[in-house]
Amino acid sequence: MSKQIWKGGALLAPVPPVLVSCGSLESPNLITVAWAGTVCTHPPRLSISVRKSRYSYPLIRESGEFVVNLPTQKLLRAVDWCGVKSGRDVDKFKEMHLTAAPASTVGCPILEESPLNLECKVFQVLELGSHDLFLADITAIQVDESLLDAQGKLCLDKAGLLAYAHGSYFSLGSQLGTFGYSVRKKKKPRR
Amino acid sequence: MSKQIWKGGALLAPVPPVLVSCGSLESPNLITVAWAGTVCTHPPRLSISVRKSRYSYPLIRESGEFVVNLPTQKLLRAVDWCGVKSGRDVDKFKEMHLTAAPASTVGCPILEESPLNLECKVFQVLELGSHDLFLADITAIQVDESLLDAQGKLCLDKAGLLAYAHGSYFSLGSQLGTFGYSVRKKKKPRR
Repeated sequence: MSKQIWKGGALLAPVPPVLVSCGSLESPNLITVAWAGTVCTHPPRLSISVRKSRYSYPLIRESGEFVVNLPTQKLLRAVDWCGVKSGRDVDKFKEMHLTAAPASTVGCPILEESPLNLECKVFQVLELGSHDLFLADITAIQVDESLLDAQGKLCLDKAGLLAYAHGSYFSLGSQLGTFGYSVRKKKKPRR
Repeated sequence: MSKQIWKGGALLAPVPPVLVSCGSLESPNLITVAWAGTVCTHPPRLSISVRKSRYSYPLIRESGEFVVNLPTQKLLRAVDWCGVKSGRDVDKFKEMHLTAAPASTVGCPILEESPLNLECKVFQVLELGSHDLFLADITAIQVDESLLDAQGKLCLDKAGLLAYAHGSYFSLGSQLGTFGYSVRKKKKPRR
Protein backbone atom coordinates (compact mmCIF):
# COMPACT_ATOMS: atom_id res chain seq x y z
CA MET A 1 0.00 0.00 0.00
CA SER A 2 1.03 3.60 -0.51
CA LYS A 3 -0.02 5.76 2.40
CA GLN A 4 -0.44 9.45 3.04
CA ILE A 5 -0.01 10.88 6.53
CA TRP A 6 -2.78 13.23 7.64
CA LYS A 7 -3.34 15.12 10.85
CA GLY A 8 -5.68 13.48 13.37
CA GLY A 9 -9.41 13.39 12.66
CA ALA A 10 -12.54 11.65 13.89
CA LEU A 11 -12.44 8.88 11.29
CA LEU A 12 -13.21 5.75 13.28
CA ALA A 13 -15.87 3.87 11.28
CA PRO A 14 -18.44 2.45 11.17
CA VAL A 15 -20.12 3.91 14.23
CA PRO A 16 -23.77 3.54 15.35
CA PRO A 17 -26.01 6.54 14.50
CA VAL A 18 -28.39 6.08 17.42
CA LEU A 19 -31.48 8.04 18.35
CA VAL A 20 -31.10 9.15 21.95
CA SER A 21 -34.33 9.98 23.77
CA CYS A 22 -34.36 12.23 26.82
CA GLY A 23 -36.57 14.63 28.75
CA SER A 24 -39.95 13.52 30.10
CA LEU A 25 -42.83 11.53 28.68
CA GLU A 26 -44.80 14.79 28.49
CA SER A 27 -41.98 16.80 26.94
CA PRO A 28 -39.63 14.34 25.25
CA ASN A 29 -36.76 15.04 22.88
CA LEU A 30 -34.64 13.04 20.45
CA ILE A 31 -31.04 13.66 19.40
CA THR A 32 -29.01 11.66 16.93
CA VAL A 33 -25.61 10.62 18.24
CA ALA A 34 -22.97 8.76 16.25
CA TRP A 35 -20.25 9.29 18.84
CA ALA A 36 -21.47 6.32 20.89
CA GLY A 37 -19.85 3.07 21.94
CA THR A 38 -19.90 0.15 24.32
CA VAL A 39 -17.32 0.71 27.04
CA CYS A 40 -17.75 -2.26 29.41
CA THR A 41 -19.35 -5.72 29.36
CA HIS A 42 -19.78 -6.31 33.12
CA PRO A 43 -21.45 -4.18 34.28
CA PRO A 44 -22.94 -3.29 30.90
CA ARG A 45 -21.97 0.30 30.17
CA LEU A 46 -21.91 2.58 27.15
CA SER A 47 -20.95 6.12 26.30
CA ILE A 48 -22.43 8.89 24.21
CA SER A 49 -20.81 12.24 23.41
CA VAL A 50 -22.94 15.39 23.20
CA ARG A 51 -22.05 19.03 22.55
CA LYS A 52 -22.85 21.40 25.43
CA SER A 53 -24.77 23.63 22.99
CA ARG A 54 -27.35 20.96 22.19
CA TYR A 55 -30.87 21.25 23.57
CA SER A 56 -30.61 17.70 24.87
CA TYR A 57 -27.44 18.40 26.83
CA PRO A 58 -29.01 19.86 29.99
CA LEU A 59 -31.91 17.39 29.77
CA ILE A 60 -29.43 14.51 30.03
CA ARG A 61 -27.03 16.26 32.40
CA GLU A 62 -29.66 17.29 34.93
CA SER A 63 -31.67 14.07 34.93
CA GLY A 64 -28.69 11.74 34.51
CA GLU A 65 -30.88 9.60 32.26
CA PHE A 66 -31.28 8.82 28.58
CA VAL A 67 -32.26 5.96 26.29
CA VAL A 68 -30.22 4.75 23.31
CA ASN A 69 -32.67 3.62 20.63
CA LEU A 70 -31.16 1.54 17.82
CA PRO A 71 -32.39 2.86 14.48
CA THR A 72 -33.58 0.81 11.55
CA GLN A 73 -33.73 1.62 7.85
CA LYS A 74 -37.37 2.71 8.32
CA LEU A 75 -36.11 5.34 10.77
CA LEU A 76 -33.39 6.70 8.46
CA ARG A 77 -35.07 10.01 7.73
CA ALA A 78 -35.71 10.60 11.45
CA VAL A 79 -32.09 9.72 12.23
CA ASP A 80 -30.83 12.35 9.83
CA TRP A 81 -33.45 14.98 10.66
CA CYS A 82 -33.05 14.64 14.43
CA GLY A 83 -29.31 15.18 13.95
CA VAL A 84 -29.71 18.57 12.27
CA LYS A 85 -32.85 20.04 13.88
CA SER A 86 -33.11 21.33 17.43
CA GLY A 87 -35.69 20.46 20.06
CA ARG A 88 -35.70 24.18 20.91
CA ASP A 89 -37.53 24.84 17.64
CA VAL A 90 -39.56 21.72 16.95
CA ASP A 91 -41.26 18.80 18.65
CA LYS A 92 -39.23 16.07 17.01
CA PHE A 93 -41.52 13.21 18.03
CA LYS A 94 -44.53 15.03 16.60
CA GLU A 95 -42.87 16.16 13.40
CA MET A 96 -41.47 12.70 12.66
CA HIS A 97 -44.73 10.95 13.72
CA LEU A 98 -42.89 9.00 16.40
CA THR A 99 -44.05 7.71 19.76
CA ALA A 100 -42.59 8.32 23.21
CA ALA A 101 -43.36 5.34 25.45
CA PRO A 102 -42.49 4.68 29.10
CA ALA A 103 -39.12 3.25 30.01
CA SER A 104 -38.89 0.67 32.79
CA THR A 105 -35.94 1.99 34.84
CA VAL A 106 -35.59 5.67 33.88
CA GLY A 107 -37.96 8.64 33.79
CA CYS A 108 -37.29 9.59 30.19
CA PRO A 109 -39.13 7.88 27.35
CA ILE A 110 -38.08 5.21 24.91
CA LEU A 111 -38.67 5.56 21.17
CA GLU A 112 -41.41 3.02 20.59
CA GLU A 113 -40.62 2.60 16.87
CA SER A 114 -37.06 1.42 17.60
CA PRO A 115 -36.92 -2.35 18.16
CA LEU A 116 -34.14 -2.19 20.75
CA ASN A 117 -33.99 0.41 23.50
CA LEU A 118 -31.10 0.65 25.94
CA GLU A 119 -32.15 2.46 29.11
CA CYS A 120 -29.19 4.30 30.62
CA LYS A 121 -28.20 6.05 33.86
CA VAL A 122 -25.18 8.36 33.78
CA PHE A 123 -22.42 7.66 36.29
CA GLN A 124 -19.73 10.05 35.04
CA VAL A 125 -19.35 13.02 32.68
CA LEU A 126 -16.02 14.08 31.17
CA GLU A 127 -15.37 17.34 29.33
CA LEU A 128 -13.30 16.45 26.28
CA GLY A 129 -13.48 19.54 24.05
CA SER A 130 -16.25 20.01 21.47
CA HIS A 131 -18.12 17.15 23.15
CA ASP A 132 -18.75 15.97 26.69
CA LEU A 133 -18.62 12.23 27.27
CA PHE A 134 -21.54 10.71 29.18
CA LEU A 135 -20.62 7.34 30.67
CA ALA A 136 -23.69 5.35 31.67
CA ASP A 137 -24.92 2.06 33.05
CA ILE A 138 -27.33 0.16 30.82
CA THR A 139 -30.04 -0.50 33.39
CA ALA A 140 -32.59 -2.30 31.20
CA ILE A 141 -33.27 -3.21 27.60
CA GLN A 142 -36.56 -3.26 25.78
CA VAL A 143 -36.60 -5.57 22.78
CA ASP A 144 -39.34 -6.02 20.24
CA GLU A 145 -40.65 -9.57 20.00
CA SER A 146 -40.31 -9.45 16.21
CA LEU A 147 -36.54 -9.78 16.75
CA LEU A 148 -36.86 -12.99 18.79
CA ASP A 149 -36.87 -16.47 17.32
CA ALA A 150 -39.06 -19.36 18.49
CA GLN A 151 -36.62 -20.04 21.36
CA GLY A 152 -36.64 -16.40 22.44
CA LYS A 153 -33.13 -15.76 21.13
CA LEU A 154 -32.34 -12.28 19.87
CA CYS A 155 -31.78 -12.14 16.09
CA LEU A 156 -30.41 -8.64 15.70
CA ASP A 157 -29.63 -9.28 12.03
CA LYS A 158 -33.40 -9.09 11.40
CA ALA A 159 -33.56 -5.49 12.60
CA GLY A 160 -32.21 -3.72 9.51
CA LEU A 161 -29.77 -1.65 11.57
CA LEU A 162 -27.94 1.41 10.30
CA ALA A 163 -24.23 2.22 10.35
CA TYR A 164 -22.52 5.59 9.87
CA ALA A 165 -19.16 6.08 8.19
CA HIS A 166 -17.52 9.36 7.18
CA GLY A 167 -20.73 11.31 6.72
CA SER A 168 -22.83 8.60 5.11
CA TYR A 169 -25.48 6.19 6.37
CA PHE A 170 -25.22 2.53 5.38
CA SER A 171 -27.33 -0.56 5.81
CA LEU A 172 -25.65 -3.62 7.19
CA GLY A 173 -24.74 -6.04 4.41
CA SER A 174 -24.02 -9.76 4.52
CA GLN A 175 -23.30 -11.65 7.70
CA LEU A 176 -19.70 -12.79 7.17
CA GLY A 177 -19.07 -14.89 10.25
CA THR A 178 -19.63 -15.18 13.97
CA PHE A 179 -17.21 -14.45 16.79
CA GLY A 180 -14.67 -17.28 17.14
CA TYR A 181 -15.33 -18.82 13.73
CA SER A 182 -11.64 -18.79 12.84
CA VAL A 183 -10.74 -21.24 15.61
CA ARG A 184 -13.83 -23.44 15.74
CA LYS A 185 -13.39 -27.05 14.78
CA LYS A 186 -15.38 -28.04 11.79
CA LYS A 187 -17.89 -30.77 12.46
CA LYS A 188 -16.69 -34.08 11.08
CA PRO A 189 -18.88 -35.44 8.33
CA ARG A 190 -20.86 -38.50 9.37
CA ARG A 191 -19.78 -41.73 7.80
CA MET B 1 -44.60 -3.17 18.65
CA SER B 2 -44.75 -5.65 21.50
CA LYS B 3 -41.73 -5.37 23.74
CA GLN B 4 -40.07 -7.52 26.35
CA ILE B 5 -38.07 -5.96 29.16
CA TRP B 6 -34.65 -7.50 29.75
CA LYS B 7 -31.89 -6.69 32.21
CA GLY B 8 -29.10 -4.47 30.90
CA GLY B 9 -26.59 -5.88 28.44
CA ALA B 10 -23.90 -4.69 26.03
CA LEU B 11 -26.19 -4.63 23.00
CA LEU B 12 -25.31 -1.35 21.29
CA ALA B 13 -24.84 -2.18 17.60
CA PRO B 14 -23.25 -1.99 15.13
CA VAL B 15 -19.83 -1.30 16.59
CA PRO B 16 -16.45 -1.25 14.82
CA PRO B 17 -14.37 -4.45 15.24
CA VAL B 18 -11.00 -2.75 14.93
CA LEU B 19 -7.51 -4.26 14.98
CA VAL B 20 -5.49 -2.39 17.60
CA SER B 21 -1.72 -2.55 17.20
CA CYS B 22 0.60 -1.95 20.13
CA GLY B 23 4.06 -2.82 21.42
CA SER B 24 7.16 -2.05 19.39
CA LEU B 25 8.10 -2.46 15.75
CA GLU B 26 10.42 -5.32 16.80
CA SER B 27 7.86 -6.97 19.07
CA PRO B 28 4.44 -5.87 17.93
CA ASN B 29 1.03 -7.21 18.94
CA LEU B 30 -2.53 -6.99 17.63
CA ILE B 31 -5.77 -7.17 19.60
CA THR B 32 -9.28 -6.99 18.22
CA VAL B 33 -11.48 -4.48 20.00
CA ALA B 34 -15.16 -3.91 19.28
CA TRP B 35 -15.71 -1.75 22.34
CA ALA B 36 -14.40 1.33 20.55
CA GLY B 37 -15.96 4.67 19.67
CA THR B 38 -15.35 8.27 18.71
CA VAL B 39 -15.70 10.46 21.79
CA CYS B 40 -14.83 13.98 20.57
CA THR B 41 -14.52 15.84 17.25
CA HIS B 42 -12.25 18.73 18.33
CA PRO B 43 -9.72 17.66 19.39
CA PRO B 44 -10.21 14.32 17.63
CA ARG B 45 -10.41 11.67 20.33
CA LEU B 46 -11.55 8.07 20.56
CA SER B 47 -11.82 5.36 23.16
CA ILE B 48 -11.10 1.65 23.31
CA SER B 49 -11.92 -0.71 26.16
CA VAL B 50 -9.54 -3.54 27.05
CA ARG B 51 -9.63 -6.19 29.78
CA LYS B 52 -6.76 -6.00 32.28
CA SER B 53 -6.03 -9.69 31.64
CA ARG B 54 -5.17 -9.16 27.98
CA TYR B 55 -1.54 -9.34 26.84
CA SER B 56 -1.97 -5.97 25.11
CA TYR B 57 -3.17 -4.25 28.28
CA PRO B 58 0.22 -3.46 29.85
CA LEU B 59 1.70 -2.73 26.41
CA ILE B 60 -0.85 0.05 25.93
CA ARG B 61 -0.95 1.14 29.56
CA GLU B 62 2.81 1.51 29.95
CA SER B 63 3.53 3.14 26.59
CA GLY B 64 0.34 5.20 26.47
CA GLU B 65 0.22 4.50 22.74
CA PHE B 66 -1.74 2.36 20.29
CA VAL B 67 -3.01 2.44 16.73
CA VAL B 68 -6.60 1.73 15.67
CA ASN B 69 -6.48 -0.02 12.28
CA LEU B 70 -9.79 -0.17 10.42
CA PRO B 71 -10.36 -3.68 9.12
CA THR B 72 -11.61 -4.66 5.69
CA GLN B 73 -13.32 -7.79 4.50
CA LYS B 74 -9.93 -9.17 3.42
CA LEU B 75 -8.84 -8.92 7.06
CA LEU B 76 -11.91 -10.69 8.47
CA ARG B 77 -10.11 -13.87 9.50
CA ALA B 78 -7.38 -11.85 11.24
CA VAL B 79 -10.01 -9.77 13.01
CA ASP B 80 -11.65 -12.85 14.45
CA TRP B 81 -8.43 -14.75 15.17
CA CYS B 82 -6.72 -11.79 16.89
CA GLY B 83 -9.77 -11.50 19.13
CA VAL B 84 -9.50 -15.03 20.49
CA LYS B 85 -5.74 -15.75 20.47
CA SER B 86 -3.21 -14.21 22.86
CA GLY B 87 0.06 -12.50 22.00
CA ARG B 88 1.53 -14.42 24.95
CA ASP B 89 1.31 -17.61 22.90
CA VAL B 90 1.69 -16.54 19.28
CA ASP B 91 3.21 -13.85 17.08
CA LYS B 92 -0.05 -12.62 15.59
CA PHE B 93 1.55 -10.60 12.79
CA LYS B 94 3.60 -13.61 11.71
CA GLU B 95 0.79 -16.15 11.97
CA MET B 96 -1.62 -13.96 10.02
CA HIS B 97 1.06 -12.94 7.46
CA LEU B 98 0.59 -9.29 8.37
CA THR B 99 3.05 -6.40 8.36
CA ALA B 100 3.99 -4.03 11.17
CA ALA B 101 5.06 -0.69 9.69
CA PRO B 102 6.26 2.50 11.38
CA ALA B 103 3.74 5.01 12.70
CA SER B 104 4.42 8.72 12.31
CA THR B 105 3.63 10.04 15.80
CA VAL B 106 3.79 7.00 18.11
CA GLY B 107 6.37 4.32 18.80
CA CYS B 108 4.10 1.36 18.19
CA PRO B 109 3.49 0.06 14.68
CA ILE B 110 0.58 0.43 12.32
CA LEU B 111 -0.96 -2.55 10.54
CA GLU B 112 0.20 -1.97 6.97
CA GLU B 113 -2.61 -4.06 5.42
CA SER B 114 -5.31 -1.81 6.93
CA PRO B 115 -6.10 1.15 4.65
CA LEU B 116 -6.81 3.58 7.50
CA ASN B 117 -4.69 3.76 10.64
CA LEU B 118 -5.52 6.06 13.54
CA GLU B 119 -2.44 6.77 15.65
CA CYS B 120 -3.43 7.37 19.27
CA LYS B 121 -1.93 8.70 22.50
CA VAL B 122 -3.72 7.90 25.75
CA PHE B 123 -4.67 10.84 27.95
CA GLN B 124 -6.85 9.09 30.55
CA VAL B 125 -7.68 5.56 31.74
CA LEU B 126 -10.85 4.69 33.64
CA GLU B 127 -11.52 1.40 35.43
CA LEU B 128 -15.10 0.46 34.59
CA GLY B 129 -15.39 -3.22 35.59
CA SER B 130 -14.53 -6.04 33.21
CA HIS B 131 -12.89 -3.47 30.95
CA ASP B 132 -10.72 -0.40 31.38
CA LEU B 133 -11.48 2.55 29.13
CA PHE B 134 -8.52 4.12 27.32
CA LEU B 135 -9.32 7.65 26.18
CA ALA B 136 -6.89 8.85 23.55
CA ASP B 137 -6.02 11.69 21.20
CA ILE B 138 -5.88 10.78 17.52
CA THR B 139 -2.49 12.29 16.72
CA ALA B 140 -2.19 11.30 13.06
CA ILE B 141 -3.92 9.23 10.40
CA GLN B 142 -2.36 7.12 7.68
CA VAL B 143 -4.63 6.58 4.71
CA ASP B 144 -4.02 4.41 1.70
CA GLU B 145 -4.09 6.27 -1.60
CA SER B 146 -6.44 3.67 -3.05
CA LEU B 147 -9.19 5.27 -0.91
CA LEU B 148 -8.65 8.74 -2.38
CA ASP B 149 -10.39 10.07 -5.46
CA ALA B 150 -8.78 12.24 -8.16
CA GLN B 151 -9.25 15.33 -5.95
CA GLY B 152 -7.66 13.61 -2.96
CA LYS B 153 -10.99 13.23 -1.14
CA LEU B 154 -11.39 10.22 1.14
CA CYS B 155 -13.91 7.67 -0.18
CA LEU B 156 -14.28 5.40 2.83
CA ASP B 157 -17.11 3.50 1.15
CA LYS B 158 -14.46 1.94 -1.12
CA ALA B 159 -12.69 0.31 1.84
CA GLY B 160 -15.02 -2.64 2.39
CA LEU B 161 -15.23 -1.98 6.13
CA LEU B 162 -16.57 -4.43 8.71
CA ALA B 163 -19.23 -3.94 11.37
CA TYR B 164 -19.95 -6.08 14.44
CA ALA B 165 -23.39 -6.67 15.89
CA HIS B 166 -24.38 -9.14 18.63
CA GLY B 167 -21.59 -11.63 17.96
CA SER B 168 -21.56 -11.46 14.16
CA TYR B 169 -19.43 -9.67 11.60
CA PHE B 170 -21.16 -7.85 8.75
CA SER B 171 -20.08 -6.05 5.63
CA LEU B 172 -21.45 -2.58 5.08
CA GLY B 173 -24.36 -2.64 2.65
CA SER B 174 -25.86 0.11 0.52
CA GLN B 175 -25.15 3.77 1.06
CA LEU B 176 -28.57 5.13 2.06
CA GLY B 177 -27.89 8.84 2.34
CA THR B 178 -25.45 11.45 3.53
CA PHE B 179 -25.58 13.57 6.67
CA GLY B 180 -28.12 16.39 6.30
CA TYR B 181 -29.92 14.89 3.30
CA SER B 182 -33.32 15.22 4.99
CA VAL B 183 -33.12 19.01 5.06
CA ARG B 184 -31.23 19.77 1.85
CA LYS B 185 -33.06 21.65 -0.83
CA LYS B 186 -33.45 19.73 -4.02
CA LYS B 187 -31.79 21.37 -7.00
CA LYS B 188 -34.33 23.00 -9.27
CA PRO B 189 -34.43 21.50 -12.72
CA ARG B 190 -33.05 23.82 -15.42
CA ARG B 191 -35.54 25.23 -17.84
